[in-house]
Amino acid sequence: MLAANYAGEHTITIEEREAAELRPGEVRIAVAYAGICGTDLHIYHGDMDARVTLPATIGHEMSGTISAIGPDVEGWAVGDAVTVMPLAWDGTCPACRAGNEHICQNLDFIGIDSPGALQQSWNVPASTLVRLPDGVSLRDAALVEPVAVAVHDVRRSELAPGDRAVVIGAGPIGVLIATVASAFGAEVVIAEIDPGRRAAAEEMGLRTLDPSAVDQVAWVEEWTGGAGADVVFEVSGSAAAVLGATSLAKVRGTLVVVAIHSQPRPIDLHRVFWRELRILGARVYQRQDFERAVELVAGGDIPADRLITRVVPLAETASAFEALEAGGAMKILVEVGR
Amino acid sequence: MLAANYAGEHTITIEEREAAELRPGEVRIAVAYAGICGTDLHIYHGDMDARVTLPATIGHEMSGTISAIGPDVEGWAVGDAVTVMPLAWDGTCPACRAGNEHICQNLDFIGIDSPGALQQSWNVPASTLVRLPDGVSLRDAALVEPVAVAVHDVRRSELAPGDRAVVIGAGPIGVLIATVASAFGAEVVIAEIDPGRRAAAEEMGLRTLDPSAVDQVAWVEEWTGGAGADVVFEVSGSAAAVLGATSLAKVRGTLVVVAIHSQPRPIDLHRVFWRELRILGARVYQRQDFERAVELVAGGDIPADRLITRVVPLAETASAFEALEAGGAMKILVEVGR
Repeated sequence: MLAANYAGEHTITIEEREAAELRPGEVRIAVAYAGICGTDLHIYHGDMDARVTLPATIGHEMSGTISAIGPDVEGWAVGDAVTVMPLAWDGTCPACRAGNEHICQNLDFIGIDSPGALQQSWNVPASTLVRLPDGVSLRDAALVEPVAVAVHDVRRSELAPGDRAVVIGAGPIGVLIATVASAFGAEVVIAEIDPGRRAAAEEMGLRTLDPSAVDQVAWVEEWTGGAGADVVFEVSGSAAAVLGATSLAKVRGTLVVVAIHSQPRPIDLHRVFWRELRILGARVYQRQDFERAVELVAGGDIPADRLITRVVPLAETASAFEALEAGGAMKILVEVGR
Repeated sequence: MLAANYAGEHTITIEEREAAELRPGEVRIAVAYAGICGTDLHIYHGDMDARVTLPATIGHEMSGTISAIGPDVEGWAVGDAVTVMPLAWDGTCPACRAGNEHICQNLDFIGIDSPGALQQSWNVPASTLVRLPDGVSLRDAALVEPVAVAVHDVRRSELAPGDRAVVIGAGPIGVLIATVASAFGAEVVIAEIDPGRRAAAEEMGLRTLDPSAVDQVAWVEEWTGGAGADVVFEVSGSAAAVLGATSLAKVRGTLVVVAIHSQPRPIDLHRVFWRELRILGARVYQRQDFERAVELVAGGDIPADRLITRVVPLAETASAFEALEAGGAMKILVEVGR
């Protein structure tokens, strides 16, 4: 079978190798599609070389069908359409014991800390499988993982129907958070300085504003009758956005930190104090987020056609990374089986 | 009657004047004691001249007895021992309509935005009165307001019995938060670099650590069996403390921002994301916080004798500010009636 490997800074290699032996509790998946995300791009840039073991088969957004069942696995059959929630926890650390297995203190993020989906025969623990309903497109189902991120962020915010939310940043996750928040019954605006990203979001039916052209604090005040937003999602990763985000939230409003900020960021703690704001970190997902994400993808709530910019065969995986790096693409899928 | 006024930077004047006329809904209080707090000291330094109207009678931590009842007031009698929750809200702004009157978007903080307790005959809306039980010392009852701040901070954190909390900063509010958190059943340690403040906290039966001498992250890890603290209260106002605070909290732990940070502060948002932390602003109090604070003071849970460094007569109010500014004092009360 073929696999794509990250082999060091800006290098993707394609390898022909034997499928790994199935261990007890594992199933083998014939991977159909794998999406490339921002974290994969960080790995490609060499930013995470301390964490990955080279050569590394990465990839954690995927869909496929079960091709073989290992010992001690029940409830699954060859041919089942599945996606994978790529988390393996130890079950014994304080976070796991408190019920927060998804952010286990010793989490194995499959596709980063252990081999991922950019291979034609991928062995995973059966505990990570999430069933896909009949009729769902495997291409669209490769979006379930990022949709689950968005569902988790929205659930964590405790957004209620009728609430007003600002999403800062219209990249793939920002657009998905806005889409999911809308599906949950909120009114949403995306703040994005890039005109191309704004246009793409608008084409998906999302409302946008350009914070470089309008006074976004005044805009949000007006939009919310002087209250401020119920929830602000920080998905841009920008220091300026973080500093301004607290001014958009209502008294006792919530700011969800979704983006990864590798440097400490100045935050207006006086505003946090004055309005009794709540800032929440949100990372990965829990099983119910995956299940809800499957429903949203299967139900047509996710604008998959607009999100998927391009599909390339496995042999051209390097071109997917290059195109993402060049900008302008939303989501590029690798058709792993082709 | 006599009143103490803030008359501009570092200037306190004593004035003989007529008591203001009682308006409908108001009562007049013969103020017994008034405490001087950090905010009063900010005013004294001239930092809040844009907010106060000079000459300003300030003061909002107090106890006293009702000396006269205005029109349209029911349920109160001359001679009743009271303290005041010094908040007046408009009842119509979005925050009030959402039930957050205590942080009304147009809040009148009595003692800052309108005349305060450093006067012998103080008129306040009857709605602000909080009854003191028989037998409680009026001197000790002047601590109810800062105790209510601490109760609010602890309640806001959702601290549970058996939880482990770190309080950063052993000033009056830090010590009160630690005391209240202990009374709520938590195990508490105060991190404080000043040896005098550590000693004072230890004398009140509180556990302390010196973050300049021990690795506080390792200390808290060890103390919590590798989990991290359930709640961290940031009461120091220091940028370094804020930056380090996130490293002390467990997965899904809470950081409460109590101190006033006039500048944006760098925060480790990667840690916030990684551990799904929660940062909460906490400001003033709600009526139930005041009622619980009265119970704690009346029940002897607050080490009033150790907290009250000195009591001075009204004529010597200036000396109270000077002593606080010089450092070393915890709480200085003005005996307003003397």
